[in-house]
Amino acid sequence: MSFYMPAEFEKQQAAILIFPERPGSWGYGAEPAQKVFAQIINTIAKHEHVYVIVSDKTRGAAEKLLPGENITLLDIPADDAWARDTAPTFVRDRDTGEVRGVSWRFNAWGGTYDGLYAHWERDDALAEEFCRRAGFGCISAGDFVLEGGSIHTDGEGTILTTEACLLSPGRNPGMTKQEIERKLCEMLGADKVIWLPRGIYNDETNEHVDNVCAFIRPAEVVLAWTDDRSDPQYELSAACLEALGKATDAKGRKITVHKLPIPDIPVCVTEHDLLGYEFEEGEDTREVGERLAASYVNFFFANGIVLLPQFGGENAESDRRALGIMRELLSEREVIPIEAIEIIKGGGNIHCITQQIPL
Amino acid sequence: MSFYMPAEFEKQQAAILIFPERPGSWGYGAEPAQKVFAQIINTIAKHEHVYVIVSDKTRGAAEKLLPGENITLLDIPADDAWARDTAPTFVRDRDTGEVRGVSWRFNAWGGTYDGLYAHWERDDALAEEFCRRAGFGCISAGDFVLEGGSIHTDGEGTILTTEACLLSPGRNPGMTKQEIERKLCEMLGADKVIWLPRGIYNDETNEHVDNVCAFIRPAEVVLAWTDDRSDPQYELSAACLEALGKATDAKGRKITVHKLPIPDIPVCVTEHDLLGYEFEEGEDTREVGERLAASYVNFFFANGIVLLPQFGGENAESDRRALGIMRELLSEREVIPIEAIEIIKGGGNIHCITQQIPL
Repeated sequence: MSFYMPAEFEKQQAAILIFPERPGSWGYGAEPAQKVFAQIINTIAKHEHVYVIVSDKTRGAAEKLLPGENITLLDIPADDAWARDTAPTFVRDRDTGEVRGVSWRFNAWGGTYDGLYAHWERDDALAEEFCRRAGFGCISAGDFVLEGGSIHTDGEGTILTTEACLLSPGRNPGMTKQEIERKLCEMLGADKVIWLPRGIYNDETNEHVDNVCAFIRPAEVVLAWTDDRSDPQYELSAACLEALGKATDAKGRKITVHKLPIPDIPVCVTEHDLLGYEFEEGEDTREVGERLAASYVNFFFANGIVLLPQFGGENAESDRRALGIMRELLSEREVIPIEAIEIIKGGGNIHCITQQIPL
Repeated sequence: MSFYMPAEFEKQQAAILIFPERPGSWGYGAEPAQKVFAQIINTIAKHEHVYVIVSDKTRGAAEKLLPGENITLLDIPADDAWARDTAPTFVRDRDTGEVRGVSWRFNAWGGTYDGLYAHWERDDALAEEFCRRAGFGCISAGDFVLEGGSIHTDGEGTILTTEACLLSPGRNPGMTKQEIERKLCEMLGADKVIWLPRGIYNDETNEHVDNVCAFIRPAEVVLAWTDDRSDPQYELSAACLEALGKATDAKGRKITVHKLPIPDIPVCVTEHDLLGYEFEEGEDTREVGERLAASYVNFFFANGIVLLPQFGGENAESDRRALGIMRELLSEREVIPIEAIEIIKGGGNIHCITQQIPL
């Protein structure tokens, strides 16, 4: 057996999403978020199958908002709706074509060190349970803590990740950087890890790579960017650009970097947002004025399309700029803009709530 | 030879400070900071010898502001004025009483990962050079990166530190938590490391322990605290309190924790402050409104005294509260309040700019 992780931009058999309900992530009874999730699911379902994980509480809304074909609802317990981080990471056998799910240990982005909620048992169990219910073989990563959003691959032996996240004290403090690298290569059938130092400013995942940099094809990435040196993102993006400039991939190629500017106007938590949340004991709370980690890099590839976050309002022009860049870079696909403000308020974006299953 | 690190509250032969001048740390030609440094040096010099590291540029001001006895000026190149982090950490031979300085590798609090300036060669060389010039033997810690502010000791075999700093990706990513623990015990003659998870919110040292928690005698600490659950510090301090509650020290004792509330009003960078700085290429800059990591725990013990930071203005009442708590806890010493606002603007406080040499 020779399993490896195909790239997200390769052909997919399905996508996975979890219908949102957690009151501390999704304000106002999660209704505004559910509408956007439904729009995303219905859009993807035109191109491939979608598994939607629901609960007793969300099944009704899901059935109503997702009337179309190509969608399978699965009752699986979950603590929140970040399928990228809690659903399996899928790998394919190079010889037989068999697809299996990798189940990482999940600790809510940092466990007792700086995790975002106090209980994550259901999220931790979700990947294995999904494999069982959907009929995929499951490969356990043992005690190794990882979220799917903290890695990207080119499908040709290269893994892209950030030091900020994978070396964070709340993940695998008993492993050295070299040991973590070996574990990634072993689990994902890869030969090389490219380490970016940082991610997006104020990203509560400890700066997942999927919010700052993504492969659009082998040896070619987009990088979240700002030219404003007084913006705290400047230094972080500049450090990533420097690392990418020095890097070569598993096949020895240099990486072409396309800058994808972040929204010109910081997207922040409003008073109205705050009134809508209900936080539990031990859960990370929000504050009015807190800057959200808004980035256009958090897009999702599905068959023939890419779903691109848009933030609207004062950022209409930034939105159009990002859409223009992505359409130029990915002329072979349809780039579909999605109003994602209700997702970023939950702490992530379109890539964070989706997970692909390769063909 | 059997070297160990005595506690700061034990008898000292001298203290070390570096006279401030870096334009990106100390605004308005460093004059306001130099006055406070001078006040601190002159106060300590009444109780023990003080070594003051100066440059060609600062020697004149130092001579003028430090007219008294008990002070030795030493010309040693430095990148900034944080003696706690760049001067040696002193250890004493249990058998012969000989005192030597440990020279750690210094990389400006995170090197290329998230260090605060682009060049730190002089600061990195300072500990060894100080030992040579002041006549102390020097023990090299090899490639191990550490700052003195990231450790405290009870002098009886226990080291107190934070995961946030020592496990940060910018320090020793090639070592596991267990390996770091062994290295600390080996270099400092200790038997046990107590790990606190976090430090002070927005502390650019990656949350040094010396800003959040300090031994005042064996098995007894003060912990920076807030009862305001909406303050971002709440979660960090609560996590430390929990860790301390579960900890025992090297002698098996439980730790008594005294809460020392942080200033009620956040201390922030003002427009006037910002106009005073001159930043160089690659240096971490500041922003108006940025919250500074103000804490009363960043005090310094010298013989018979403790120098306690005060923030003044809107925090006069918080200042008095901290002074009252410390006077009650340390009735055997004189607790001397020091207006420290010009030091915290540089990014640290009294403990960060001082280093003790045990008797």
